[in-house]
Amino acid sequence: MAGNSYGTLFKLTTFGESHGKAIGGIIDGCPAGLELDLEAIQYELERRKPGQSKIVTQRKEPDAVSFLSGIFEGKTTGTPIGFEIINTNQKSNDYSHIKDTYRPSHADFTYDKKYGNRDYRGGGRSSARETASRVVAGAIAQQLLKDVKIYSYTSAVGDMKMTTPYNELDLSQIDRNVVRCPDPAFAKAFIEKIKVTKKDGDTIGGVISCVIQNVPIGLGEPVFDKLHAELGKAMLSINAVKGFEYGSGFEGSRMKGSDHNDIFNADGSTKTNLSGGIQGGISNGMDIYFKVAFKPVATVMQKQQTIDSKGNVVEMQGKGRHDPCVVPRAVPIVDAMAALVIADFVLRNKSVRL
Amino acid sequence: MAGNSYGTLFKLTTFGESHGKAIGGIIDGCPAGLELDLEAIQYELERRKPGQSKIVTQRKEPDAVSFLSGIFEGKTTGTPIGFEIINTNQKSNDYSHIKDTYRPSHADFTYDKKYGNRDYRGGGRSSARETASRVVAGAIAQQLLKDVKIYSYTSAVGDMKMTTPYNELDLSQIDRNVVRCPDPAFAKAFIEKIKVTKKDGDTIGGVISCVIQNVPIGLGEPVFDKLHAELGKAMLSINAVKGFEYGSGFEGSRMKGSDHNDIFNADGSTKTNLSGGIQGGISNGMDIYFKVAFKPVATVMQKQQTIDSKGNVVEMQGKGRHDPCVVPRAVPIVDAMAALVIADFVLRNKSVRL
Amino acid sequence: MAGNSYGTLFKLTTFGESHGKAIGGIIDGCPAGLELDLEAIQYELERRKPGQSKIVTQRKEPDAVSFLSGIFEGKTTGTPIGFEIINTNQKSNDYSHIKDTYRPSHADFTYDKKYGNRDYRGGGRSSARETASRVVAGAIAQQLLKDVKIYSYTSAVGDMKMTTPYNELDLSQIDRNVVRCPDPAFAKAFIEKIKVTKKDGDTIGGVISCVIQNVPIGLGEPVFDKLHAELGKAMLSINAVKGFEYGSGFEGSRMKGSDHNDIFNADGSTKTNLSGGIQGGISNGMDIYFKVAFKPVATVMQKQQTIDSKGNVVEMQGKGRHDPCVVPRAVPIVDAMAALVIADFVLRNKSVRL
Amino acid sequence: MAGNSYGTLFKLTTFGESHGKAIGGIIDGCPAGLELDLEAIQYELERRKPGQSKIVTQRKEPDAVSFLSGIFEGKTTGTPIGFEIINTNQKSNDYSHIKDTYRPSHADFTYDKKYGNRDYRGGGRSSARETASRVVAGAIAQQLLKDVKIYSYTSAVGDMKMTTPYNELDLSQIDRNVVRCPDPAFAKAFIEKIKVTKKDGDTIGGVISCVIQNVPIGLGEPVFDKLHAELGKAMLSINAVKGFEYGSGFEGSRMKGSDHNDIFNADGSTKTNLSGGIQGGISNGMDIYFKVAFKPVATVMQKQQTIDSKGNVVEMQGKGRHDPCVVPRAVPIVDAMAALVIADFVLRNKSVRL
Repeated sequence: MAGNSYGTLFKLTTFGESHGKAIGGIIDGCPAGLELDLEAIQYELERRKPGQSKIVTQRKEPDAVSFLSGIFEGKTTGTPIGFEIINTNQKSNDYSHIKDTYRPSHADFTYDKKYGNRDYRGGGRSSARETASRVVAGAIAQQLLKDVKIYSYTSAVGDMKMTTPYNELDLSQIDRNVVRCPDPAFAKAFIEKIKVTKKDGDTIGGVISCVIQNVPIGLGEPVFDKLHAELGKAMLSINAVKGFEYGSGFEGSRMKGSDHNDIFNADGSTKTNLSGGIQGGISNGMDIYFKVAFKPVATVMQKQQTIDSKGNVVEMQGKGRHDPCVVPRAVPIVDAMAALVIADFVLRNKSVRL
Repeated sequence: MAGNSYGTLFKLTTFGESHGKAIGGIIDGCPAGLELDLEAIQYELERRKPGQSKIVTQRKEPDAVSFLSGIFEGKTTGTPIGFEIINTNQKSNDYSHIKDTYRPSHADFTYDKKYGNRDYRGGGRSSARETASRVVAGAIAQQLLKDVKIYSYTSAVGDMKMTTPYNELDLSQIDRNVVRCPDPAFAKAFIEKIKVTKKDGDTIGGVISCVIQNVPIGLGEPVFDKLHAELGKAMLSINAVKGFEYGSGFEGSRMKGSDHNDIFNADGSTKTNLSGGIQGGISNGMDIYFKVAFKPVATVMQKQQTIDSKGNVVEMQGKGRHDPCVVPRAVPIVDAMAALVIADFVLRNKSVRL
Repeated sequence: MAGNSYGTLFKLTTFGESHGKAIGGIIDGCPAGLELDLEAIQYELERRKPGQSKIVTQRKEPDAVSFLSGIFEGKTTGTPIGFEIINTNQKSNDYSHIKDTYRPSHADFTYDKKYGNRDYRGGGRSSARETASRVVAGAIAQQLLKDVKIYSYTSAVGDMKMTTPYNELDLSQIDRNVVRCPDPAFAKAFIEKIKVTKKDGDTIGGVISCVIQNVPIGLGEPVFDKLHAELGKAMLSINAVKGFEYGSGFEGSRMKGSDHNDIFNADGSTKTNLSGGIQGGISNGMDIYFKVAFKPVATVMQKQQTIDSKGNVVEMQGKGRHDPCVVPRAVPIVDAMAALVIADFVLRNKSVRL
Repeated sequence: MAGNSYGTLFKLTTFGESHGKAIGGIIDGCPAGLELDLEAIQYELERRKPGQSKIVTQRKEPDAVSFLSGIFEGKTTGTPIGFEIINTNQKSNDYSHIKDTYRPSHADFTYDKKYGNRDYRGGGRSSARETASRVVAGAIAQQLLKDVKIYSYTSAVGDMKMTTPYNELDLSQIDRNVVRCPDPAFAKAFIEKIKVTKKDGDTIGGVISCVIQNVPIGLGEPVFDKLHAELGKAMLSINAVKGFEYGSGFEGSRMKGSDHNDIFNADGSTKTNLSGGIQGGISNGMDIYFKVAFKPVATVMQKQQTIDSKGNVVEMQGKGRHDPCVVPRAVPIVDAMAALVIADFVLRNKSVRL
């Protein structure tokens, strides 16, 4: 209830601070009998981990997941899956400069006011390092889903925006480049943009698009737990996210009904898909697609004015190794959260009718 | 668990179809001792009800709420507050034409596929009539919140968009016009736009902006239940919503960190507020503001091709009295959902520290 | 979260005070497509209602349930089932004598201290009248369960205790007498005992035994939600219950392992059933059986010393029409709670394995 | 939702099999700022651990808890507390004889039928080893509760039963003997009884009594989450428990109302306490007391007939080091579960009134 769990039947609870002994989690509700591909799970962690390319933070962390329970002879047993990722990079001394100083647009101030104390090392619980646990659970959810295909990719960096519709892209090419954009020309431009930003000691925002294919018809629960409402919550719960839209999104609000309605084909599919694969909060079998907006990373390598915990105005400058743009490493996190949402609704849907 | 409840400690569960005997709900967890202004609750229902102006549906329904429990001698007792709104407008014969036909971009098809049967009269459970129950609960949540001010208003209709920042608007003027826009010039234009759309037998989308002021510092729970993630879910759970953004939103994804960071004043407030009053998922005491995108109403008064439940292609045309634009009546719903989210987090925050 | 909901997937939320306008509830999560026998539901309410015989309270209340949603053309639609029972017997003036007085062993004192105010009329929310809503939901759960047979019956009144094992009783005879005991001789003695107690202006406790047959193997969730743990909670949540034991129960604690173990037959059934149909918290297909202890009703027709809300010692005497023994009317409540528990676990079990 | 979590606001989720890498859990919702006495936590684990005396299993396991998150500079931070206990005693080869054999009155059969596969080593998830995680969380809950005193003790072994009321016992003496009985004479007799049972290769059941003192008035939530209903569920969720009664319990069902009612003193306390400190499901400030019945351990050192997973009748005999009586080591588990229940209700009670 303190907000560290996600899901109703396929339920992930996570723990861990960036500079504690370990991060990890418990997945409760994964059905028994699922043969797990542990390498595929670790592969997703590699996609998220620091130091994987020139355009992300240069911190080195192996991010090796260790499973403690719930798996026997290669298969899930139906009991909770406990896992942990040891924090190997605990240079706590790096962080003394932020012990009593509130970094602008970080969570330092709000954590302090809410809890009265905090583990300030590396952001503690507010660090995006926590998302590694989500990637582990999401990778398991993806294996449960089998036929469902989830494709997240970078579709904008700063004001540079790819407008090609997803169905004109070759989504198998997403991991061909370090920025995770399936269009090679845009990929090159995005990478260049991030490099320039980094050189300036600055950071930049971006957008991740996601497409989910082969979703069974009928997922999502009215009224409050509409499929897109849960997807929205899941995405907005990722660090640095500022917005979510699905199907026609904000653009749809500018349209007329006669243009916006998706006309049915005889087989129940629709000629257009402005609905984004969801009608009345329930999947209709068409592709689900949505966009997630990420703000620029708050830690910039430039001098900024800020305050300390006593209200003194001080000057500070970002130290250490930070991401100039969060988007490339956030792609597997969007994949993971999407998989968690869909897997949970698949299980919830099992008791919906006689 | 079937998705008809919202909230953790201040919890609303709703029931009811548009053409059943009644709609209503139960609020569990409202603290005891709250003196309720029942007229203020009914007032919010009046803001949502059909037939209130020329630019909304001309259906006539009194939407009078009746409280069945949980209130004694004018005050809440801490026990569940049961309430109902009798459906007086049950002309079921109006709906025979949609009994076996799936209206485009409605929930007819998905409900049928999910549940195997459905109450097709007036959309049944998928009708936005259900939101009246949210307005009742939200009005009570608002009374619990006392000092917190919530202002929702129409900021765009179709491609006509008001760009004035909220803090340059007189938010006390929202209800001065039927479209609920605090800027009189834009209000006039929006109303005209809707009237023209209606005359064409068409519908149009729009955007509602919301500002929440005087929010206590510290609301919101990391990691999954971030304040903005719950706000996003709450808004996306409203019928016809396609997108949500808070603070700098999608625009923020185009910015650099050096421009986006909110520099602190000595008192902990910030000079700018691109964070939208929330940092690390927790309120920081600044104004919270966000935008909600609504698609155009799917029922248009024009002929459309569609299919029936056997897959036959048929032609249909919207009948009856429908909203040409959902936004004016959705303003009190956004208010209500915002109040429910904030009230729930206020209660959750009570056990956060010793 | 304020404790007025029961169940995880088949979820009942109730509202209502004994002397408010109505009591009722919402069932969320009942699968779609269940053909409901409304008369069978009302029949269970008749078994619980006041005034049905000489040995129960002589209050007259019709207790007619009205369904407001979730049912269409005789079948459940998968949407929430809202229902209400109008309170027709609201003689509030009967209760002025307890407005400021705390009745011994009632909930007057604790409600006042917890909430700061209370609806004192007839016990308000603490009245067992609330259990009528459980009976409605339980009757629906029973219809969902179809093959599962639930038999509750009175097995003790005061110190008079029936020791015949349940499998030597004709459980079809339970409703043949007003005390709901399948053994005619004990039934007669129990009825006599209650009549004498009533004549003395006193009340008396009792025990209800319950047997559940044809339970599918595999229900119940380790670790915390063991099948018997949920049954225990469900029973202990009924007003006046002081104890719960299943299978060998307290007697089992006096035994040796070599005597207590249930030896398997080749088909997986067991020769004995001291386990009570549950091993490791999971049903094994054998009969589930348990006992529920009810204290004597606290309202006696004799003078008692007590205190008022200011701490003055006063004398009071029960007025009105109360049950001399709660057990006969509690039988359908035990049935209902058992059905709710089993139905919920049946739904939960649907996602337990691939 | 798969049943491995306990609590609403103070929430424990556990993982781990007896012979996996580790067991452990996550506590979500522990308030920030609690100074933790880690030695006191380990002390409770020592009270539960195997090998501590001659009358319990002679397995040797250190059961050292390691905290991974949520604690900084000795205090809780409000973020989830992750912890683990490494399994050092993984002699998996000991368990090949039960791989395909269902031990009588164990969970082998039901786990297999429910999940389709299971980690058979040492009982896997159904092993009482899981309760070590509860002891860790319970010890933290106890530190949160400060003034609340919880005393569990052995009050019966087999048919030997201590009848002295708890308030005539010196509860500070519980840990003076290995059977954890505050009466030295009974302690001696209980120990002797267990030794004789062990020598016979048999096992024996018992009863644990628990008293909770200094509980604040007002804890517990009507209707379904009554204080004693949650206590009952918590206790019944402990391995081997067959029954729960509080206050007058089953004995109360034999009494008359005129004898059973607890008459108030002027200060709101009661002259007697047959209510067991709870009225209407809410604590009244008097001592809470209850009894928990434990069956005899199912693993006996005698030959028993049973079946294998193919339905063949086979003979088996318990091997290894098992408890002849579960009660002495279950005392700290009852303490822990009681602390979890009370702590959760303390937090839930914070939002109950304005």
